[in-house]
Amino acid sequence: MENNKRYESGLRAMEEFFSKEVRAGMEEIKKISPDLWEMIVSFGFGDLYSRNTLSHVQREIITLTALITQGAFDQLKVHLQAALNVGLSKEEIIEIIIHCVGYVGFPKAVQAMGIAGEIFKETE
Amino acid sequence: MENNKRYESGLRAMEEFFSKEVRAGMEEIKKISPDLWEMIVSFGFGDLYSRNTLSHVQREIITLTALITQGAFDQLKVHLQAALNVGLSKEEIIEIIIHCVGYVGFPKAVQAMGIAGEIFKETE
Amino acid sequence: MENNKRYESGLRAMEEFFSKEVRAGMEEIKKISPDLWEMIVSFGFGDLYSRNTLSHVQREIITLTALITQGAFDQLKVHLQAALNVGLSKEEIIEIIIHCVGYVGFPKAVQAMGIAGEIFKETE
Amino acid sequence: MENNKRYESGLRAMEEFFSKEVRAGMEEIKKISPDLWEMIVSFGFGDLYSRNTLSHVQREIITLTALITQGAFDQLKVHLQAALNVGLSKEEIIEIIIHCVGYVGFPKAVQAMGIAGEIFKETE
Amino acid sequence: MENNKRYESGLRAMEEFFSKEVRAGMEEIKKISPDLWEMIVSFGFGDLYSRNTLSHVQREIITLTALITQGAFDQLKVHLQAALNVGLSKEEIIEIIIHCVGYVGFPKAVQAMGIAGEIFKETE
Amino acid sequence: MENNKRYESGLRAMEEFFSKEVRAGMEEIKKISPDLWEMIVSFGFGDLYSRNTLSHVQREIITLTALITQGAFDQLKVHLQAALNVGLSKEEIIEIIIHCVGYVGFPKAVQAMGIAGEIFKETE
Repeated sequence: MENNKRYESGLRAMEEFFSKEVRAGMEEIKKISPDLWEMIVSFGFGDLYSRNTLSHVQREIITLTALITQGAFDQLKVHLQAALNVGLSKEEIIEIIIHCVGYVGFPKAVQAMGIAGEIFKETE
Repeated sequence: MENNKRYESGLRAMEEFFSKEVRAGMEEIKKISPDLWEMIVSFGFGDLYSRNTLSHVQREIITLTALITQGAFDQLKVHLQAALNVGLSKEEIIEIIIHCVGYVGFPKAVQAMGIAGEIFKETE
Repeated sequence: MENNKRYESGLRAMEEFFSKEVRAGMEEIKKISPDLWEMIVSFGFGDLYSRNTLSHVQREIITLTALITQGAFDQLKVHLQAALNVGLSKEEIIEIIIHCVGYVGFPKAVQAMGIAGEIFKETE
Repeated sequence: MENNKRYESGLRAMEEFFSKEVRAGMEEIKKISPDLWEMIVSFGFGDLYSRNTLSHVQREIITLTALITQGAFDQLKVHLQAALNVGLSKEEIIEIIIHCVGYVGFPKAVQAMGIAGEIFKETE
Repeated sequence: MENNKRYESGLRAMEEFFSKEVRAGMEEIKKISPDLWEMIVSFGFGDLYSRNTLSHVQREIITLTALITQGAFDQLKVHLQAALNVGLSKEEIIEIIIHCVGYVGFPKAVQAMGIAGEIFKETE
Repeated sequence: MENNKRYESGLRAMEEFFSKEVRAGMEEIKKISPDLWEMIVSFGFGDLYSRNTLSHVQREIITLTALITQGAFDQLKVHLQAALNVGLSKEEIIEIIIHCVGYVGFPKAVQAMGIAGEIFKETE
C-alpha cells in the first residue's frame, strides 16, 4: 500500500468515528505540525483503526479504557462522542467506566463519569 | 442483596473466567489478607463482573487494556487466560494489543505481546 | 452485613470527612450513574473508610499521596478539605506534599502545593 | 547547614529506617554513581526524612502509598521492611494496601499484598 | 559547598532558563511553602540543573520528555519557554513531541503539541 | 514514499542503533505478531527514528527519559545499549538518570541506575 492510500484510508476511518465538527477541531493540530497530523491520520486511523478483526465498537472500548487509565481526559471527550457515533449506548459507556473502578480506582472513574455526563447532555 | 450473596455471585463469576488452577493461585492472597480476598470476590467479581450491559468478552477487553496501559504485567497473564476462556481468539487479543500502540506507545504494547506469546504457547 | 447497612455506614463515614456542601457536590454523580454512586458510598466509604486499624488522619495521608502520585488533582481538592476536617494541620499537609517530592518528583508536588494553597485560602 | 551535615543527618535517618544489610545493599548504587548516592543520602534522607512535623510512621505511610500507586514494586520491599522497623504493624501495612484498592485499583494492590506477604514471612 | 551556595547557584541557573516574569510566577509557591521553594532552587536547580556533563539544551529535552510522559501539562508551559530560551528551535521542540508518539502514544503527544502551539504563538 | 520504503528505511535506522544480536532478539516478536513487527520497523524506526531535525543522540535521550518516566525497565536495557552505540558516554547516561530524579522521583531513577550499571558491566 502506498502512503497516500494509508492517508486516504485514515480519513475514511475518521469519518466513521467523528462528526465533521470534531474532525475540523482535530485538524487544528495541522497548523502546528503537519507531520503529526499526517501520522494521526495515516498511522493512527489508516494503520490502526482501519484494521479488521475488531469491530468499531470494540476499538472504542479499548480507546476509552486506555484514556481513562492514563487520565487523558482531554481526549476522552472526542472519543466519548465517537463511541456514541459507532453505536455504543450511554448505558454501555457508563458500564465501561464502572468496570474500570476495579482496575484504576475511583478517582479516574469518577472524573470520567463526570465528563461522560457532560457529553451525554450535549448530545441529547 | 446480602453480603454472602455478593460473595457467592463473585465466586460464580470467577468460575466463568478462570480455570480451577488459576483460581487456586489467586486464593493464595487469602492467607495474607482474608479481607482483601473478600473484596476481590465480592466487589471485584460479585459487584463488577456479575453486572449486565456488557458481555464477558467486552469486560476482558476493558481489563486487558487497563492492565496494559498501567503496565500491570503480572496480572496480565491471568487475564490473557481469562480472555481466551470467555471466547476471545488469539487474533483478537493480538489486535487489542496492536490497537493499544497508538494509545500507550510501543514499550508497553511490545511487552504485552511478549507475554501474550508465552500464554498462547502454554495453552496450545 | 446486609447491603443497606454498608450504604448507611458509608454515608456516616462521609459525614465525618466531608462538609454538607462537598457531599452535595459529590452526589451529582448520582444523576449520571446511580450505580457508581452506590459503589462510592457502599464500597469506597462503607467498606474501606469505615474499617478500623488506621485512623481517619492516616487514611487521608494515604488518599492524598495516592492522588498526588497519579496526578488526580481534580479529586485532590475535596480530599485536602477532608484532611483538614479530620484533623490534619496545614503544616502537616504541606509536609506530606514535600515528602512526595522524593517519590514523585517536583512537577506533581508543585502542582499539589498550588492547589493546597488555594484550599487553605478558602478555609481561612 | 553545610553540605556534609546534610549527608551525616541523612545517614543517621537511614539508620533509623533500614537494617545494616539493607543499607549495604542500597549503597551498591554508589559504585555506579557516587553522585546519585550522595543525593539519596543528603536530599532524600537528610533533607526529606530528617524533617519534623510528620512521624517516621507517617513518612512510611506516604512512601508505601507512593510506591504502590506508581507500581514501583522493586523499592517496595525495602520500604515494607522500613515500615516494620519504625513501628507499623503487619495489620496496619495490610490496611494501607487495602485502602489503596479504592484509589489505584486491584492490580497494584494485589501485587503489593503478595510482596508484603513475602516480607512478612522473611521477618518472622 | 555550603547550603547558601547551592541556593545561589540554583538562582543563577534559573536565570539562564526562565524569564523574569516566569521566575516571579514560580516564586508564588514560596508564600505557601518556603521550604518547598528552597528545595526547588537548591536541589532542583542548584544540585541538578547546575551540573555539568549535559548541556542546557539536553537538560530541557529530558525535562520536556519527562513532563509529556507523565502528563504534567501544567509545568510543560514554563519548560517549553525555557527550551526556547536555552536555544531549542520550534522545529526541534515539535520533533521531540513527535518522537514521543512512539513511546507514550498519541493522546499525550497531541495534548503537548496543542500547548506548544499556544506557547509558540505567545512568543512570536 | 511507498510502504516497502518505510520498512527498508526502518531496518537501516535499526542497524544504526542496535547490534545484530539485539535486533535478532527484537525480531522474536514477529513470530507472535508479524503486523506489530511491521509497525515497529515501518512506523517506529522508518517514520520516527529516520526523521531529521534531531540527532541520534538526542533521540536516545528522549527515549531513555520516556522509558524511565513510565517505568518501562524491560525496554530500557536495549535502549541503554543503543544510547552507547550512537555515542552517548556512560557519564552522560548517568547524568540523564540523575536529572530525572527531580522529575520522576528517586524510585524510578534508582531502578534505572541499577540497570545501567548492569549494561555498563556487560559492555566493558
